[in-house]
Amino acid sequence: MITADLVVTNLVELVTCEPTLGDGPLGVIRDGALAAAEGRIVWIGAAADLARDVTLGPSGRRLDGRGRVALPGFVDSHTHLCFAGSREEEYAMRAGGASYQEIAAAGGGILSTVRATRAASVDELVALTRPRLRTVLAHGTTTVEVKSGYGLTTADELKMLEAIRWLGQAQPVEVHATFCGAHEVAPEYRDRTDDYVDLVVHEMLPAVAERGLARYVDVFCEEGVFSVKQSRRILEAGARVGLRAKFHADEFVALGGAELAAQVGALSADHLLRARLDGVAAMAKAGVTATLLPGTAFFLGLPYAPARSFLETGVRVALASDFNPGSSMGPNLPLVMTMAVSQMKMTPEDALLGITLHAAHAMGLEAELGSLRPGKQCDVVLADVPNWRYLSYHYGVNHVSRVIKRGRVVWAR
Amino acid sequence: MITADLVVTNLVELVTCEPTLGDGPLGVIRDGALAAAEGRIVWIGAAADLARDVTLGPSGRRLDGRGRVALPGFVDSHTHLCFAGSREEEYAMRAGGASYQEIAAAGGGILSTVRATRAASVDELVALTRPRLRTVLAHGTTTVEVKSGYGLTTADELKMLEAIRWLGQAQPVEVHATFCGAHEVAPEYRDRTDDYVDLVVHEMLPAVAERGLARYVDVFCEEGVFSVKQSRRILEAGARVGLRAKFHADEFVALGGAELAAQVGALSADHLLRARLDGVAAMAKAGVTATLLPGTAFFLGLPYAPARSFLETGVRVALASDFNPGSSMGPNLPLVMTMAVSQMKMTPEDALLGITLHAAHAMGLEAELGSLRPGKQCDVVLADVPNWRYLSYHYGVNHVSRVIKRGRVVWAR
Repeated sequence: MITADLVVTNLVELVTCEPTLGDGPLGVIRDGALAAAEGRIVWIGAAADLARDVTLGPSGRRLDGRGRVALPGFVDSHTHLCFAGSREEEYAMRAGGASYQEIAAAGGGILSTVRATRAASVDELVALTRPRLRTVLAHGTTTVEVKSGYGLTTADELKMLEAIRWLGQAQPVEVHATFCGAHEVAPEYRDRTDDYVDLVVHEMLPAVAERGLARYVDVFCEEGVFSVKQSRRILEAGARVGLRAKFHADEFVALGGAELAAQVGALSADHLLRARLDGVAAMAKAGVTATLLPGTAFFLGLPYAPARSFLETGVRVALASDFNPGSSMGPNLPLVMTMAVSQMKMTPEDALLGITLHAAHAMGLEAELGSLRPGKQCDVVLADVPNWRYLSYHYGVNHVSRVIKRGRVVWAR
Repeated sequence: MITADLVVTNLVELVTCEPTLGDGPLGVIRDGALAAAEGRIVWIGAAADLARDVTLGPSGRRLDGRGRVALPGFVDSHTHLCFAGSREEEYAMRAGGASYQEIAAAGGGILSTVRATRAASVDELVALTRPRLRTVLAHGTTTVEVKSGYGLTTADELKMLEAIRWLGQAQPVEVHATFCGAHEVAPEYRDRTDDYVDLVVHEMLPAVAERGLARYVDVFCEEGVFSVKQSRRILEAGARVGLRAKFHADEFVALGGAELAAQVGALSADHLLRARLDGVAAMAKAGVTATLLPGTAFFLGLPYAPARSFLETGVRVALASDFNPGSSMGPNLPLVMTMAVSQMKMTPEDALLGITLHAAHAMGLEAELGSLRPGKQCDVVLADVPNWRYLSYHYGVNHVSRVIKRGRVVWAR
């Protein structure tokens, strides 16, 4: 007999994302139940078998799922949700046909976010970001990656990472930080990119590592920003101080970011709108996750990544929001699933794996998160839908009615 | 001095959609206020002038806008939200590349909704549809058009329209019904489309008109469904019994629906993905509204309507959801705005007019609805955003915090 402190019953479907635990590629258990103790799943199965196997401890809680669908808490493995300022004017200008240069000349673009973020204190960044994490949680996301990269000085990058660390402790969403000092060349280093790379490698990275402020290192490997060679320098320097690589690759130009990701053994290469299939195949072989961000293509009006061709190479495909003020001001992962299905022709199953188990892989957290099986964290979303397919099918509506993080109800409608 | 029974104050922006009442094409009043009596707006202006002009009656209510943005209640002028059954499997099949024929062979397609709707009673249709109207309201829609067209027999079309009438009386969203018996050729009339048109004209339309069950008449004017000639017959027969034309035109093929809309003086021609620019220009001249449904293009993965080219003809462009189980299972009009801006490159101003004033025009209700000015119904949405642009910019999140219909708060977060 297993003793639990949380039991969830009355679930029309329990979507484990573990094929061995139920039906189909998502391992769906109809009329399922789960039990947790001390924040971890201890039992999962058919509700009819629960009483045989599990006893609820004296202070335990029995949660009535009310016929809802239970799924793993969603994992958003690529966001820039810590920032100051706002760029809705730029969004309007872009619809009117304004170029990147015209937007920058009007005071927009990434450097406008850098100016505002530099001007903000840690406390101000926390105050601005905390409601965004609340919104993320309300849409079912229980774990989120958040990048620095709007500071672009050592002090401002550390400030962002301190705000991100603070946020991870101050609210229920699990936050993992990425040092993204090479998000853009700092304006002070215009036309001196190699000098800025030196700053990143010799000053920023050691300072971040010394303070234990980040888990991952990211670089915007793109024509006109950081070359493959510069990106490799940064990622390898990150590896030397214990940061796993997870970076922006081949978004606008086929520069060779996918190939680089395979060579350096990155956790994930992200965007990949223009990636060469050979490069993606190399990623598949090296076990690198391809993280696609269809919300960005949607928001910018660009063609979507060829997800089906990528899947045919055998690469693991994750989906993330890219939530940021410039190129995708949207935190809703089920809506990202709808884009994946409608626009990129992924199956609904692959789309759901993309925001759960595969996203956990993209963060190296697959042993802890991303699916529901005994031993993993009890991070669960209850959705008020007749079956899991409605999450992407009935789109633009937030179906999440309850969110459980480490065995505790942290959000309820 | 004007006596009011509702006063709304503390609004960071009051977006009137009446250029003469405020700044810019949307007539925005910063720090605005409005007053209503007996469900109609009686005063609108700067909060600073409110006390000078308006007194609140003894049982009146003062609503604190808490620094939110006020906008006209959204108008969804094209939906099929009354239906039985569900088509999430078909959505998955389509992503996998299944053709229309394969989907129909597997039991999907519009006729699957017809089968389920024919099998449902009025009460069952009401019970299925009422929560959808609640969702619609929660996303800021205060007036909705709902079509019949899943019955395709006289009795089943009347049944749908009775359910729709009942729904209009049973909940706060204002509902206007469209008779859409010519949504598809009934399966019993396969290869006898002219006979089905006879049934629509000689039996269905008189029965609908006699019972006063619809305000509009719609037909799916499309290759393989109803020809321009057949559509004209139906629309003209509708006109004879007092129903205004408002119909599906040029969605998949440039059949001449736009031209027909101009010729018969329709209120609106809808979809228009393939419409010829000449036809749209004729619509502009005839005062017909072009209603675009980007959610459908999004959901089906089709190219969007060329909205900017349409706007250049001078045509009035409305935006609607097309909420239906087959081709767009989404009721969220602010998300439709995002699609209009990101995908069709409409300005955010035109996108907002598309779901307010221009949608009211598409329903012939512009004297009552769609903008905020004295004399019109007091249908107001309060949105928890720093400015109105966030409605489409910060997408995939429901920003609506309160909905007022005819001067009464009918939904609050």
